[in-house]
Amino acid sequence: MNEFNPQDIASLLDEVRRRPPLVHNITNYVVMNYTANALLALGASPVMAHAIEEVEEMAGLADALVLNLGTLSPPWIESMLAAARVAARRGLPVVLDPVGAGATRLRTNTAHRLLETRSITVVRANASEVRALAGQFTRVRGVDAADPVESARDAALKLSGQYQVVVAMTGPEDYITDGRRAIGVANGHPLMARVSGTGCVASALTGAFCARSPDAWTAAAGSLLVLGLAGELAAQANPRPGAYAVGLLDGLDEINADIVKTRARLVRYALHPDRDEHPNPAS
Amino acid sequence: MNEFNPQDIASLLDEVRRRPPLVHNITNYVVMNYTANALLALGASPVMAHAIEEVEEMAGLADALVLNLGTLSPPWIESMLAAARVAARRGLPVVLDPVGAGATRLRTNTAHRLLETRSITVVRANASEVRALAGQFTRVRGVDAADPVESARDAALKLSGQYQVVVAMTGPEDYITDGRRAIGVANGHPLMARVSGTGCVASALTGAFCARSPDAWTAAAGSLLVLGLAGELAAQANPRPGAYAVGLLDGLDEINADIVKTRARLVRYALHPDRDEHPNPAS
Amino acid sequence: MNEFNPQDIASLLDEVRRRPPLVHNITNYVVMNYTANALLALGASPVMAHAIEEVEEMAGLADALVLNLGTLSPPWIESMLAAARVAARRGLPVVLDPVGAGATRLRTNTAHRLLETRSITVVRANASEVRALAGQFTRVRGVDAADPVESARDAALKLSGQYQVVVAMTGPEDYITDGRRAIGVANGHPLMARVSGTGCVASALTGAFCARSPDAWTAAAGSLLVLGLAGELAAQANPRPGAYAVGLLDGLDEINADIVKTRARLVRYALHPDRDEHPNPAS
Repeated sequence: MNEFNPQDIASLLDEVRRRPPLVHNITNYVVMNYTANALLALGASPVMAHAIEEVEEMAGLADALVLNLGTLSPPWIESMLAAARVAARRGLPVVLDPVGAGATRLRTNTAHRLLETRSITVVRANASEVRALAGQFTRVRGVDAADPVESARDAALKLSGQYQVVVAMTGPEDYITDGRRAIGVANGHPLMARVSGTGCVASALTGAFCARSPDAWTAAAGSLLVLGLAGELAAQANPRPGAYAVGLLDGLDEINADIVKTRARLVRYALHPDRDEHPNPAS
Repeated sequence: MNEFNPQDIASLLDEVRRRPPLVHNITNYVVMNYTANALLALGASPVMAHAIEEVEEMAGLADALVLNLGTLSPPWIESMLAAARVAARRGLPVVLDPVGAGATRLRTNTAHRLLETRSITVVRANASEVRALAGQFTRVRGVDAADPVESARDAALKLSGQYQVVVAMTGPEDYITDGRRAIGVANGHPLMARVSGTGCVASALTGAFCARSPDAWTAAAGSLLVLGLAGELAAQANPRPGAYAVGLLDGLDEINADIVKTRARLVRYALHPDRDEHPNPAS
Repeated sequence: MNEFNPQDIASLLDEVRRRPPLVHNITNYVVMNYTANALLALGASPVMAHAIEEVEEMAGLADALVLNLGTLSPPWIESMLAAARVAARRGLPVVLDPVGAGATRLRTNTAHRLLETRSITVVRANASEVRALAGQFTRVRGVDAADPVESARDAALKLSGQYQVVVAMTGPEDYITDGRRAIGVANGHPLMARVSGTGCVASALTGAFCARSPDAWTAAAGSLLVLGLAGELAAQANPRPGAYAVGLLDGLDEINADIVKTRARLVRYALHPDRDEHPNPAS
């Protein structure tokens, strides 16, 4: 699969629902409930477990592992490292969501520490986090992106190359690259940024899609496409953020192969061997 | 009360609302908010506290204690044991929700450790957790049931006898037994399984009902009946899981004595002295 | 500003939205998600971080700090103290929400310990918590108020004087005093008490308003006014607590300067030098 094809994502979505993957999340307190409900709404199966006493056993049962650095503390870091080792040994996809990387050293350093285990498959992050992890200047103060996606594409490519990971960067236009291929996903809705945890949900869904696809780049882009489309469905009846957060879950339930095939708004990027970007928009 | 009578549950519901019990929950991060809102929607009063430094004092103020093993870690286990001791001394009902028993040894062992204190009044669990705790084979991998309720009735009776507890097993048809009596509750809706924490909510409501009833078997069956009916009310206007989760809370507010008396779908089981089951359906 | 003027709050609301403050919350597990979504719905920017390893750094980036004692444990207390020190050094407003003070010694003592650092700007609490912290008898058992607001105005004045803080006491009629000025806010709706975390939301919003106002008394009263009005907006279409909780977030998005200026229901209290209260109702 060198090309990104919405038809493949439609099939992948069906496959996720046919054989619901168990997604083991070591994630932050703020979004645990919303993440679990998003995975359930999509049709996947969530489990949350973080104690060092059980985290390897749980990762041993799972189909994907999602590590999220929000509300981080040292015992959780040890559990993430242990679970990542099990996942790597089992060949499971591991998604890293470096929430707040760039905001505090604990988060930036932990993200690098996890990346250095070479067990991470996908980094799902916003532009500020990607810039911070690529060692670039960022204006981030909290956990929300302060840099435009456009300013971070080079950083995404650098990060991808440095750790051999897919970088799935979310923003008004998502940008997903494995260093060799890159695609933009322009689906989504501004209200997504008004709901706590939509980025974390993107990471969790990416885990679910990676569990059922041999190609993490396709799975990551596909999960952002599906979430973006669900976000568009949600906006139709929910103009304010409270109801919208609920509607987004309903959108993950409503989304289907037909919607994926007909409403994807993609931007294709050709990556030159020297990695200069030459955007080549196409629908 | 040897017979389960919806009229008794209607009265119990009114009593819970007239004198809202304080339900002390030591529960998992994923469902804390939803559980608190469910108790409030029903008309009860939730409190969450887990630190060993205050857990005995809080259990000393409460009318019921609910111990939930999701997102478990060792300090929380010590707090659960301490709170359970206080509850036992005060004669409080204690509900155990062994989330993920059978999935990891930490959870299975902790459930047994708590049961061995002989302070547990009701075990509210799904079929896989009941099978796991009764020492039977289970196909569970995460926290969702992988075994049909029908396959776990014997296990429920065994568990009930072993620890002298009420077992309230939830599924498409709930099964509630104290070893001497057994009843099935067929109310509910498939969307309940698409919302994170409905099982945990069942456990918390069971705590509230037990706090206002001298008979834990009646209270446990009654709480599952009330939740099942609320789940049916919720489905009338909410066909997708996001809105349904909200509607379930509204259903707990809407449910009343009249609905309980007229819409209960019960399955009566006669238990022989040798505990063979002879299902004897009746409305 | 010796007078409380809804026009000032309308301007303050606009200012919060024009320059969204970063509000650093060290808060309880139950309400983290709802609090984050409430701040986002209002137009502010939330961040949750509690590890001692990063809490000073995060407080160093924030515009306000909110300390909430629900689901308290000793490591979190140390983090609160550390973050409060940074906030005080930087001149940041610090809001204390003493959830459950009076219910357990851990919570009561921690509230006093934080107040004694002299870094607290506003105590946002219910009547029972205010009475407990002022050393008065309270009937509280859990985290819900068991005393009427009217019975705690003296306690609010005492607490305000003892620690030189604004006390923002919520209830059917909120009462906000800095010891020199006092105002009642009669906006709100009974359903707010049926939703877990509305008090915690009040505290978080108070942090956001204090971040953009030189006068904490005005900011605190203004945030309770805005929340009360949002609560009234929410009640128009949501008669039950599940949907109401969602609607309250939408209300925080919908609320605007015009609504603030036209629908405020204020009760003005004149405080004599000897602090006898002489209520002097006015719209």
